[in-house]
Amino acid sequence: MAKKNINVGLIGYKFMGKAHSNALSKIGMFFDNSANINMKVICGRNEEWIKQSAEKYGWSEYELSWEKLVKRPDINMIDITAPSNVHKEIAIAAANEGKHIFCEKPLALTLADAREIYETAEKNKIKHQIGFNYRFAPAVLLAKKLIDDSKIGRIFHVRANFLQDWIIDPDFPLVWRLDKKVCGSGSLGDLGAHFIDMARFLAGEFSTVMAMSKTFVKSRPLSESMTGLSGKAVSIDPRSIEAGDAAPCADVEVDDGTVFVAEFKNGALGVFEATRFAQGHKNDMSIEINGELGSLKFIFERMNELQYFSAADEPGTQGFRLIQASEAIHPYMYAWWPVGHVIGYEHTFIHELYEFTESIANDKPLNPICPDFMDGVKCSQIIEAVELSCERKALVEVDSL
Amino acid sequence: MAKKNINVGLIGYKFMGKAHSNALSKIGMFFDNSANINMKVICGRNEEWIKQSAEKYGWSEYELSWEKLVKRPDINMIDITAPSNVHKEIAIAAANEGKHIFCEKPLALTLADAREIYETAEKNKIKHQIGFNYRFAPAVLLAKKLIDDSKIGRIFHVRANFLQDWIIDPDFPLVWRLDKKVCGSGSLGDLGAHFIDMARFLAGEFSTVMAMSKTFVKSRPLSESMTGLSGKAVSIDPRSIEAGDAAPCADVEVDDGTVFVAEFKNGALGVFEATRFAQGHKNDMSIEINGELGSLKFIFERMNELQYFSAADEPGTQGFRLIQASEAIHPYMYAWWPVGHVIGYEHTFIHELYEFTESIANDKPLNPICPDFMDGVKCSQIIEAVELSCERKALVEVDSL
Amino acid sequence: MAKKNINVGLIGYKFMGKAHSNALSKIGMFFDNSANINMKVICGRNEEWIKQSAEKYGWSEYELSWEKLVKRPDINMIDITAPSNVHKEIAIAAANEGKHIFCEKPLALTLADAREIYETAEKNKIKHQIGFNYRFAPAVLLAKKLIDDSKIGRIFHVRANFLQDWIIDPDFPLVWRLDKKVCGSGSLGDLGAHFIDMARFLAGEFSTVMAMSKTFVKSRPLSESMTGLSGKAVSIDPRSIEAGDAAPCADVEVDDGTVFVAEFKNGALGVFEATRFAQGHKNDMSIEINGELGSLKFIFERMNELQYFSAADEPGTQGFRLIQASEAIHPYMYAWWPVGHVIGYEHTFIHELYEFTESIANDKPLNPICPDFMDGVKCSQIIEAVELSCERKALVEVDSL
Amino acid sequence: MAKKNINVGLIGYKFMGKAHSNALSKIGMFFDNSANINMKVICGRNEEWIKQSAEKYGWSEYELSWEKLVKRPDINMIDITAPSNVHKEIAIAAANEGKHIFCEKPLALTLADAREIYETAEKNKIKHQIGFNYRFAPAVLLAKKLIDDSKIGRIFHVRANFLQDWIIDPDFPLVWRLDKKVCGSGSLGDLGAHFIDMARFLAGEFSTVMAMSKTFVKSRPLSESMTGLSGKAVSIDPRSIEAGDAAPCADVEVDDGTVFVAEFKNGALGVFEATRFAQGHKNDMSIEINGELGSLKFIFERMNELQYFSAADEPGTQGFRLIQASEAIHPYMYAWWPVGHVIGYEHTFIHELYEFTESIANDKPLNPICPDFMDGVKCSQIIEAVELSCERKALVEVDSL
Repeated sequence: MAKKNINVGLIGYKFMGKAHSNALSKIGMFFDNSANINMKVICGRNEEWIKQSAEKYGWSEYELSWEKLVKRPDINMIDITAPSNVHKEIAIAAANEGKHIFCEKPLALTLADAREIYETAEKNKIKHQIGFNYRFAPAVLLAKKLIDDSKIGRIFHVRANFLQDWIIDPDFPLVWRLDKKVCGSGSLGDLGAHFIDMARFLAGEFSTVMAMSKTFVKSRPLSESMTGLSGKAVSIDPRSIEAGDAAPCADVEVDDGTVFVAEFKNGALGVFEATRFAQGHKNDMSIEINGELGSLKFIFERMNELQYFSAADEPGTQGFRLIQASEAIHPYMYAWWPVGHVIGYEHTFIHELYEFTESIANDKPLNPICPDFMDGVKCSQIIEAVELSCERKALVEVDSL
Repeated sequence: MAKKNINVGLIGYKFMGKAHSNALSKIGMFFDNSANINMKVICGRNEEWIKQSAEKYGWSEYELSWEKLVKRPDINMIDITAPSNVHKEIAIAAANEGKHIFCEKPLALTLADAREIYETAEKNKIKHQIGFNYRFAPAVLLAKKLIDDSKIGRIFHVRANFLQDWIIDPDFPLVWRLDKKVCGSGSLGDLGAHFIDMARFLAGEFSTVMAMSKTFVKSRPLSESMTGLSGKAVSIDPRSIEAGDAAPCADVEVDDGTVFVAEFKNGALGVFEATRFAQGHKNDMSIEINGELGSLKFIFERMNELQYFSAADEPGTQGFRLIQASEAIHPYMYAWWPVGHVIGYEHTFIHELYEFTESIANDKPLNPICPDFMDGVKCSQIIEAVELSCERKALVEVDSL
Repeated sequence: MAKKNINVGLIGYKFMGKAHSNALSKIGMFFDNSANINMKVICGRNEEWIKQSAEKYGWSEYELSWEKLVKRPDINMIDITAPSNVHKEIAIAAANEGKHIFCEKPLALTLADAREIYETAEKNKIKHQIGFNYRFAPAVLLAKKLIDDSKIGRIFHVRANFLQDWIIDPDFPLVWRLDKKVCGSGSLGDLGAHFIDMARFLAGEFSTVMAMSKTFVKSRPLSESMTGLSGKAVSIDPRSIEAGDAAPCADVEVDDGTVFVAEFKNGALGVFEATRFAQGHKNDMSIEINGELGSLKFIFERMNELQYFSAADEPGTQGFRLIQASEAIHPYMYAWWPVGHVIGYEHTFIHELYEFTESIANDKPLNPICPDFMDGVKCSQIIEAVELSCERKALVEVDSL
Repeated sequence: MAKKNINVGLIGYKFMGKAHSNALSKIGMFFDNSANINMKVICGRNEEWIKQSAEKYGWSEYELSWEKLVKRPDINMIDITAPSNVHKEIAIAAANEGKHIFCEKPLALTLADAREIYETAEKNKIKHQIGFNYRFAPAVLLAKKLIDDSKIGRIFHVRANFLQDWIIDPDFPLVWRLDKKVCGSGSLGDLGAHFIDMARFLAGEFSTVMAMSKTFVKSRPLSESMTGLSGKAVSIDPRSIEAGDAAPCADVEVDDGTVFVAEFKNGALGVFEATRFAQGHKNDMSIEINGELGSLKFIFERMNELQYFSAADEPGTQGFRLIQASEAIHPYMYAWWPVGHVIGYEHTFIHELYEFTESIANDKPLNPICPDFMDGVKCSQIIEAVELSCERKALVEVDSL
């Protein structure tokens, strides 16, 4: 059977652009998929950079204008990895052109914008998915399966955090990820969004939240990235690629750390923490769910492992099992290597884009494990509830927003 | 030099009574201490049980009336391990008799009572200490030392939880630890008190809190303990020693789980969780502190270990160190076994009572690492702030109480 | 029912003497035992030290001569914790006096001596046990139970090691533990003996061995302990209590590290390593057994935990379980604290001496989990086979010795 | 500067063929490399399969005859991933044609063959590398760097093992990895080869070995792979791709598990174990090195982590550091994702082939971290010494072979 062509236009070419390019180029090598994925056009404003990226990442062409790209009739899927503040405009334009859209998280800077995007997508009957890639670690999907199979029963507790340590130095510049105009939020939106989605995915909908947040370093040197790309190589962290030297300072308007408690609609209690100020923690996202019959724990830095406690195990031999979730029977692992031959961060992108392109190629609904724009809306809603709670110093009902 | 006699009267003979008896009997065997600790009188209301306990635990005499005990002129130290609801009356009576008092946590069922106890103790110029024994794990004291030595610098984050799983079964009876009249609080007061104290000890004073709590099982069978002691041996958990069979039910008035966020006076953010509904977690108290220069993490079930991250380590070789905190240079370990020959839970009691009896014997102030009744007051204050926040669904300033 | 008096005479008062004194004093406090254990006489040659030890550890009297002690009619149990080179003489004398004997490992310096002790004990029909205390960690006994319950099936592999790091410094003196005349062997006899016993206990008898050993530091300063006890307090390690300053050097005649492979009679393969030259490892004894149906792993420094893999678990959810082996249903734990309230090294001595004294008090055979002098003989046999293999550079059949 | 074309001919298309194809396709996307790597020809005997593989993995052409391939003038690099028993013939032919050769391990089935390959390669002055890919985990290269920087000093101990559990079932068929004619060896050659190489890489040359090995299941059903490739997809393990149903049995002539001890030329002692019979261990390769100044430990299933103990750390704060070896300053990680965004098994192939193609493109010697055919020879030499020791039941000097 002939594969259906999907001609992709990718907007953005940095961290996420690279991750998506890699993913799109690998799906066909590892999966028996239905789509013939053509990496057609990559799009960005800096011609020198975008040209280089096109060549390096294997795109046939490049465009400088996304407005032009979304109108090209030869493109049927738009993949948005541009900075968060342009998601809305691009997504709405692409949806109105009838393109299927994969959009990196967050869907938009505000809940209202996220809703508008969602509604536009639905109105145009396009397929849409949002980049909550952490769902696609096989260990996470195994957790989901165990929950769906009633292995842990009624859920009592959810605890999750996402801890990093890359901006503790007060001389670290105000890069775009710290710029409220670009990102809308700091650690909450960047990191918290991932565990909020995962908590919803595994444990259900949020009911209420109570939150606090802090900006520990209130002023930082402006980085060159504020006015343009420096392109300097940096030895510490690709995310700081635009870091400059001595520079005038500006106020930091986003949170460095946010903590909150929550009640879920099923009655469970949650505790959550997102921060970039936890020394020694690099990309430490973890989530644990405690239920009546068992518990599950996932730690991203050991993403091939799932911890599972079953109260049904024989008394005296109960304990958290350390599952090496890389057996062929674990989600997606049949496509990779023999058990124990671990996979990495980038594979989550391959899995999510495999699902999205399959849905397009076969014109069938998204696999239910995939987050669509409504999941983006719900995540934005919770983030806004958390922010409102910080402001009000009181409990906020999520559905009131 | 002759040792000074300390004649101890111990009130209570169950879990804590046993732990204190053991501790008092071992101090002299392992430490070169100044006191001659006489295990003089153990006190409890059930003559059969208290007589048996006196013999088993090595007490010279027993008393049935604590009122009588605290007046005995031959007793100069009272050790209170009776249920929480009688702490106040005993402590005030003993203080007024000029006895030095070691009191198990919580100091009292309410903040007001705790303050009254503290003031009575101060007025009578007695020595007083409260049983926050977890401070006395060598690994915790090492953490304290590293913090005092400025190894982690300005503190940004505190996260602690105390997770157990012993009352998930809805048929588990309403034992005294679930009885609001006896304990005042559920998981918060029993478990949370420990990490609240430890957070204060390591990271400083709390400023504000926002909390939620839940009683997952709202009604439970009444246990025999409601009307009297059964004395039945139980194979599962000494805490459930009074568990009965089929019985009428009563409402559970204490929290099964409580979660809260907090701001510290030094600006740090905290996340906290106490629960008896976390499947697979047995006595899992953990606390982590993240500072500008490093991080520290302690997990009680691996109490001989401390995790320490130092940002001062050579770049490229940084990582959390797993310190086996049982070297002779670690707090108290010179008294025990060679490095790596681990100690256990009961040793924390030996250490705290060693400090208290040394303070009495030498008539000198308590070692500053010891929590006194003011620490009991502060812990009660935070617990009440947490409870008030649950009620108000809003932020509460701790010092407003 | 009246308890039977056991009047103990303890020979030795250092590391092991302290551990045994502590254990004997605690049995009655925690177990409902049949014996009334009288800590009657402690014996050692240095009057100042032994007098002080008697007082500190709670012994009624002291003796300077073990020859005299073993003849005292009021003593019915002899506990030998003196240096290894005097075990034989004491044990044979005590056995011939009809005293029940608990002897620290090793039973003797040579296999021939060990056999002579065993035969003398048997001839005199006394009860005898050897101090392989690591068997008595609840986690180890749980492993034994799981093996006996056929949970892991046919055994394929055993791997064990005992790693320490306290003599890497070439200036560390030639303390008695490094003196061939006193100990007979270095890391092999001191450390290897423990895992050899545990391998036999859990996996069965050894058939053949092939070994290599090394003395990495071939000459060391003589310590004062060579000529007499210094009694100086030392901050690093009680084992080095006799460490002196500048001193003449002598050759080290024992092994610093020994490694060997083995075949068991049941066909399993083993790998073993004992060393005092493994930086960072403090008292790191671990053993793992892999069988047809499952695997078990124990690490002493986390002695409250047992790792257990069951191939019978549902596919896709299999993984090593981390059992917190401190539930009341785990061996001996009913006597201690609630689950998760961990115990330590010293508890292994309490358990082993509880068993031995129960056997005496009730005049019944030792609990089969207890190692008797025949286990001491078998351990010596394997150690000699390992030493012979090092010498011959070839395989040695254990039963040929 | 124009990149130099490297036209690759890949022989083999299964597990390793897929890993190499993926690697070759990714180098240019992530590294600023000097070569223009053309995935020109893939070669295999089954036309249906090789055609499909060419398409799936992105090769321009396919060939059915390796004899023809190695003669093609448009090919300048041959990559051998065919079964071990054909390595020799192909490698010698390719070398004689002047092609640069990357060959999967083992280099050959015998030491003599390995030497012949090496000599032919040297005589023809081609570049050659062998696929000891585990060296190329960033954490391993960090370990190498720390050793080279004298961070651990004189080495005392090496302990390594490679544990799997996929053939415990006696009904598992005699697939090609269990066929002596194809592989030459069982667990020793397949698994042991990796840690032998890594031990040499990190700790130096072997001097002597003493070994035992076992075939636990002595007869197995013949699989279809014995007579020809079935090509059936299998959901469990790619290694078992040829597994058949009921079939006649044949003797297993290779080892299921091999254990050995070793002395290194620098005086260190080693213990080693390779097995496919360790329940619960999936692809568990680990190696630890203990030196005078520190220790290092690597576990493949947590390949992004390195454990490092430094005796130079401040006393009282020493402990094994858990280094998340995914910072940009760690080997190769600048090319990937931000710190903590872990990589996987397949990345080791990308790194090794990046180095090899760079060496060709720039016509400069291999990076010294790369294993060449001499490393393949030395590994074969140690394997043969181990096998000989099993046979002789005695110590074998490696250099005697």
